[in-house]
Parts: sequence; structure tokens; C-alpha cells
Amino acid sequence: MRLATRANGRRDGALIVVSGDGTRYLPTDGTMQSALDQWHRCEQVLRALAVRLDAGQGEPLDPETLLAPLPRAWQWLDGSAFATHGELMQQAFRLPPIETDRPLMYQGMSHRFLSGHADVALPSEADGIDFEGEFAIVTDDVPMGCSADDALGHIHLILLLNDWSLRAIAPIEMKTGFGWVQAKPACSVAPFAVTPDELGDAWRDGRVCLPLSVEVNGTWFGSPLGDAMAYGFHELIAHAARTRDLPAGTIIGSGTVSNANHAEVGSTCLSERRAIEMIEHGSPQTPFLRFGDRVAMHAGDRFGRLDQQVVRG
Amino acid sequence: MRLATRANGRRDGALIVVSGDGTRYLPTDGTMQSALDQWHRCEQVLRALAVRLDAGQGEPLDPETLLAPLPRAWQWLDGSAFATHGELMQQAFRLPPIETDRPLMYQGMSHRFLSGHADVALPSEADGIDFEGEFAIVTDDVPMGCSADDALGHIHLILLLNDWSLRAIAPIEMKTGFGWVQAKPACSVAPFAVTPDELGDAWRDGRVCLPLSVEVNGTWFGSPLGDAMAYGFHELIAHAARTRDLPAGTIIGSGTVSNANHAEVGSTCLSERRAIEMIEHGSPQTPFLRFGDRVAMHAGDRFGRLDQQVVRG
Repeated sequence: MRLATRANGRRDGALIVVSGDGTRYLPTDGTMQSALDQWHRCEQVLRALAVRLDAGQGEPLDPETLLAPLPRAWQWLDGSAFATHGELMQQAFRLPPIETDRPLMYQGMSHRFLSGHADVALPSEADGIDFEGEFAIVTDDVPMGCSADDALGHIHLILLLNDWSLRAIAPIEMKTGFGWVQAKPACSVAPFAVTPDELGDAWRDGRVCLPLSVEVNGTWFGSPLGDAMAYGFHELIAHAARTRDLPAGTIIGSGTVSNANHAEVGSTCLSERRAIEMIEHGSPQTPFLRFGDRVAMHAGDRFGRLDQQVVRG
Repeated sequence: MRLATRANGRRDGALIVVSGDGTRYLPTDGTMQSALDQWHRCEQVLRALAVRLDAGQGEPLDPETLLAPLPRAWQWLDGSAFATHGELMQQAFRLPPIETDRPLMYQGMSHRFLSGHADVALPSEADGIDFEGEFAIVTDDVPMGCSADDALGHIHLILLLNDWSLRAIAPIEMKTGFGWVQAKPACSVAPFAVTPDELGDAWRDGRVCLPLSVEVNGTWFGSPLGDAMAYGFHELIAHAARTRDLPAGTIIGSGTVSNANHAEVGSTCLSERRAIEMIEHGSPQTPFLRFGDRVAMHAGDRFGRLDQQVVRG
């Protein structure tokens, strides 16, 4: 089942169910958040609409009317579960390995998620504007102390997102130990939130086993696979829920998708490509983004497409 | 003017206006969030209710019916603006000074703020359960790039809160550079949110110039002054808004209140007292909290009182 949120003049928009080919929809009288608040009651209703869509019913869907699946969320926790990415950054910047035996995770801003076609307004090119291609999951209410095994049952939706990042600020904030505030503005999310069953065999062991493809100004940049996570999403949930309940609508991200064979599959952020260039050539060759640049992402056609321009804010 | 949120069976409760002595209230038909969303339209209505309370009208207020002023918020950013606290921690743990020329700030969980009388359920005493007494402010919508001068006009409410912290986890998470997730469970907030004018001369230069008093199991623990912030709240807002808009209802915290004359005024967290003991005696003497312990905080009678028991979650 594929869900999306259609603009209706309100901040949270209107929840819709989308056909398998992404061209038609049927409306609901709720929001994505209200469905997640009572998922076990709402899911049947939504799946009944999906059956009607499979039978050819529904209105034509204009992608321009879509917001992020959750235009705002009560919690956004982003992991960094691809070991290759961390190793490349440490090697390039001669950083000591991060000393931890647990998943890496920070709390990010969750009061706004941009749609997949919205302009991305940022204050300065000097901040080192970069993207990060990530998969993410959305939970219902998760109790404190939830185990990784139990966490799998709390994953109801899967997202594709772009975690915009400002690389001139990131290391300054990271050095304080306090995590990122200025370096992590609003993320963008591809239009369709899909249920795990919709991914079939590509949803395995709490991981999205699909290539995440990135294009910069129309040129292929990378398409690494999402299955190389050192921790699955269920383990990220258990980590997050160790000392807190997670509210319905919590979004947890994988961190920038990265594979060991990056020479073949590329990367999903400029920073990682620049790190590889530093290791291979002594200095980065690829510049960060300028205003007017476009970044597109997709994972086949399941999540729809992110395709956005960076503009002066 | 003093505002509060009364339990009504909904997650966001009902906004009420409270009399100067905290004993009476008049209801509204909104929530704290809805008032902040349209503060310039709602403020007059709320102030008219405050005038009626001053004239002796209103219902008796039962403090047990009060939730946190914002039971959940779209954003919680916590500073660490008291230089003495950082210096003591660095000296005790022989850490290098944090290299930064800007305010320290992390993004914390905002989907739940506990009331001032709720039990605080945490999973393990071994996590090093601690409190942090803080002042905080609440904004309306703040545009990206807002200056510190303009930020003063976006501060509409002031809070007293307890930023519960788990000290066995905090340094592990801090070393990763990603900030805190497990080490920072839900904060608790004193019942009354007050407008800056309500503080009179005690609101100066974006700082709350009042002692924040802490008692542990009924014994005085500290009462340092809130005016020793290296950055005022308006400067913390400008820092937070450098690369993002802040939504109405954003809460920004001062960090644990701490004064240079701590030998006389004490501290507002166990961790700081333990650091002082390490510096003076070579090892900490004061234990972290056990289940059953109580922590109370107030700043005179303006914000009402936090008085909570820590329990096994």
C-alpha cells in the first residue's frame, strides 16, 4: 500500500491512498498523523481503499499537489548506520574512529519536512550545501524499553528522504559533542510512504534492499544499496526507545546510504565523494552545491521522486 | 500574565489563564499551541481574561489538574549558556575546553513534557539519574535569519523546567559528536508559563534574573541566579534560526543554571556538585538519584513548583 499527503491549505494536509502506478488516488478524511495515531484501526480502512484503486477506481493524481507524507512529525531521529560512510570520513579527515558499541543517532528538526518538489531555501552557499540520500521508517507508538524483535512490528511505513546538510558548519557543531542544529535544516521526503509488504523481498531484516539513486543537475551521482546497514531499523528503534517512549509518527533515518564498492556504485552525498577524492588525490575535486543546482533521488518508482532546486533563502 | 494547561482528556489539554496568586483560573477554548500559532490575535483576549481574574473572578484552581504548559511541542532546543557549569565539568573530568565561538545547543525530544507533579519513570538507576534546573522561553513563528535584536520580540512565554539527564550515558553519546538521545528523556515543566512583563525587572537583557531553587528529598540543594548566561535567550534564538525557521511553540532552554559562587549558592544538578567534589576531594561524594527520590524546583512563586518522584519505568 502506498500513502501520500495532499495539500489542502492545512499544515498537515489530507491523507490519500495512491494506486500502484502512482497515477490515481482515493481520499480519506484523516491525516497521516491521525492514521499513525490509531494505525491498527485505520489500516483496514486504508487497505480497502487500496483494493478499490487496484480495481481501477480513483481520481487522477497531480504530483504537484503532494506534500511530504508527514509535513511535520513529533520526532525525527537520524542514524548513521552505513559503516563505509563513517570509515571514509575518518580516513579523509584523519579523525579517530568514533568510540561506540551502539548505533550512532542524533535528534533532528521535525517541525517541517519539505515535499519532493519544493525549492530548498538556504541562507548561504558558504555553508557547504550538501544532500544525503537516506531510507527511513515511521513507527506507531513504541513503549520505552521495546526490544529490537518487537520493534519490527512497529514499522508501518518506509520513506525515501534527502537529509540536507551544511558541511561548513557540521564539524564545528560535532566537535562540541552537542550534535547538529545549524548544520541540519529541514529534510525533504519523496511523495509516497509505502508499507513494508509493498517492498516484497526488498524489505529484509529491517533493511530496505534497494539501490538509492541520486542525480545532480541531471547527471548520475550514485546508486548504492540500502541493505548494508550495520544495524537494521528495528535495532535503531530499540536504541531510540531505551529511555523514552516514541510517539506515533516517529521517523527514524538510516543515515546516508553508502557501500564498500563506492568506486562502482557512487555515493549519496557530496561529502563522501569529496572524502574519496581526498584519499585518492589529496584534495576534494567536487564542489558543494550552488544556488540553482538540482538534486534528484529515487529508488525505482516505489517512493516517487525527489527533484529539487537549491535557492537563496 | 500567567498561563497554564489543564487536563481535559486530550493530548494538548486546554489553555487557561491563571490569577496572580495561582489560586483561580478562567478557561479558554484553545490550547497553548493554538494561542502561540496566532499570538498577536490571541494575546488581547487572554489579557482581557487576566483583567477579570485581577478583579476577583475565576474558578478555584486545583494544581493536580495541570499538565505541562506545552504537553508536547514541535521543537525543543536546549542551550548550555552558563559558563561556570562547563568550566567545572571540564576541570573535574580533565576535558579540553569545547572549541566554539558560538552558543552550545542540542535538539532534544519534544513530543512529551511532563507536568510538575508527574512521576518520572526511568528504566535504570545505573544510568546515573540526574536533574538540571533551567529557565526556558517559548517563541511564536521565527523566520530563518532572525537577528538577536528582533528575537527579543518573539519571546512570549518563560518557563521553569527540569531537564532530566542520565549521566552514565551522556559522555558516551557526547563523544560520538551526535549529541544526546538516550541520555535525555522527557523534561518536566513547572505549571505556569509567564509573559516577560510578568517578571518585571527580573526579565533583563534576555535573561531571567531570579534564583532557581532546587530541593532534593526536602533538603536545599542550590539556588543560583539565572542572569549569569553567557548568551541571552534572544541570542540563543538567533543561533537556532540561522539556517531554519522556528515554529510557534519552539522552546529554548538556558542549560543548567550555574553561578561562579557555587560554594554559597549551590548547583542545580547533581553532576555539577559531583564535579566540585572531584575537584576539591578527588572523588564525587553525592550519589545520583535512586527510585523513590524526590526533586523539587521553584523560582519564588511565579512559575509554580516542580515536585516529582523518580520511579522505575
